[in-house]
Amino acid sequence: MRTAEQVGKLVDRWRSAGRRIGFVPTMGALHKGHLSLVSLALREADRVVVSIFVNPTQFGSGEDLGSYPGAFNEDLAKLEKAGVHCVFSPSVDEVFPDGFSTSVNVSGLTETLCGKYRLEHFNGVATVCAILFSIVKPDIAVFGRKDAQQLAVIRRMVDDLRFSIDILAGEIIRECDGLAMSSRNSYLNSSERKQASVIYRGLSRATELVSEGERVAERIYDAVREVIGTAPLATIQYLELVDPVTMMPVEKLTTPALLAVAVYFGHTRLIDNVILNR
Amino acid sequence: MRTAEQVGKLVDRWRSAGRRIGFVPTMGALHKGHLSLVSLALREADRVVVSIFVNPTQFGSGEDLGSYPGAFNEDLAKLEKAGVHCVFSPSVDEVFPDGFSTSVNVSGLTETLCGKYRLEHFNGVATVCAILFSIVKPDIAVFGRKDAQQLAVIRRMVDDLRFSIDILAGEIIRECDGLAMSSRNSYLNSSERKQASVIYRGLSRATELVSEGERVAERIYDAVREVIGTAPLATIQYLELVDPVTMMPVEKLTTPALLAVAVYFGHTRLIDNVILNR
Repeated sequence: MRTAEQVGKLVDRWRSAGRRIGFVPTMGALHKGHLSLVSLALREADRVVVSIFVNPTQFGSGEDLGSYPGAFNEDLAKLEKAGVHCVFSPSVDEVFPDGFSTSVNVSGLTETLCGKYRLEHFNGVATVCAILFSIVKPDIAVFGRKDAQQLAVIRRMVDDLRFSIDILAGEIIRECDGLAMSSRNSYLNSSERKQASVIYRGLSRATELVSEGERVAERIYDAVREVIGTAPLATIQYLELVDPVTMMPVEKLTTPALLAVAVYFGHTRLIDNVILNR
Repeated sequence: MRTAEQVGKLVDRWRSAGRRIGFVPTMGALHKGHLSLVSLALREADRVVVSIFVNPTQFGSGEDLGSYPGAFNEDLAKLEKAGVHCVFSPSVDEVFPDGFSTSVNVSGLTETLCGKYRLEHFNGVATVCAILFSIVKPDIAVFGRKDAQQLAVIRRMVDDLRFSIDILAGEIIRECDGLAMSSRNSYLNSSERKQASVIYRGLSRATELVSEGERVAERIYDAVREVIGTAPLATIQYLELVDPVTMMPVEKLTTPALLAVAVYFGHTRLIDNVILNR
């Protein structure tokens, strides 16, 4: 479906029939990570809508909006095979019509991690999700844990603006060598791709250290940086231990905390994370 | 009712019974202007919720949050007499619980008129209205035309974030001498109050000029300033002719336009407006 009106009518019919509606927002270029979110939605809801919308307002200037991978026909085939009931793929004008002037901003938890480097990103994400939630009116919506800060932002917004939606989190799905699945992995050349597994090895070293009793963020950072440093093509943008809800920095592990990392390989920026002291 | 949960349950029951729900958000200190909005809601809906909530986030620092008039018991009596079905009067913590971090911002049409002088005001209004709309889930909501820019902001936000709510506008209700009713009129001392009728006389002079054929904003401003200038206690903050939807300045009347004015009498800031070339 291409228009909000079509989707609105469909979900109204489902709702009248007492169906529980699940929603998975995506930017397309679907991989097994996305499909695991779709499976979760299909388990938890009677009818599932997946949106495919490359939202321009969540890309900064100089980011990869123009080259973001697209594979619409393949995406549709995957979603049909998975058993999705509706794919909503609106145009930019359908979501942001002429005169559109509203933005939804979540402060505080957008100021660490990715928020420091992608200033307008989370405002773009929060705004488009508010719009999509209003169109689809789902009972549940599923987001991946790879985008941990996005998940926290969406949960905060849903609580604050009182959307009646349960936000479910899907686990990170990884390639055989541990690289977190991402549509942006397709940007990597073969040597970058080989070295990219270092990110997960670094995070795993942190898990190991914590299981041995380490609690100090700085010492965990040192160990992870050492592992990631073995890949000559890797440049760490940030490596930070934060509270998983507020995204505020944590210096010493006392409760579960999120160790989040962003690493550049050439122009490609990859993010990953792990919960420590779970 | 004091909590969102109570109101949510009540309106869910009404909705299940097929009732059309109307909503009038207020800050209390109710006068005949508010009551005319309530009447409009009662005519257009089966069940009407009125909120009384003095929203701290729509007052700037140095504004009159601390002294804003309150008359809770009188307000309740007036609303009961009017036939309102529910009064929602939440605490600040109920609307903005610990950790609240989200704001809804409407750009463009908040940058003229009051927006120039009350920088955070419309973000506060848009955010609290988004929250109240999510709690009450009304079919219609009624706002007064006296706050013309607020009306435009709410309409824009409702369109952009796709709330399924019809926004209705209530006409400005005036005292016998033409002063627009406002809770803030109670701040005026007797000489200020006497002179305050000059605002409406100024706007009426504009209507008269336009009916005689005048179309140039600057000449209309001159005439209105001359009338308002006859009140020694009046200081004009702004006087501007704008498009009623976009709030963008209009130099020459070709279509209906909003002539909006803000005038200080001592510390009291009064606003009023009229549609010209209707």
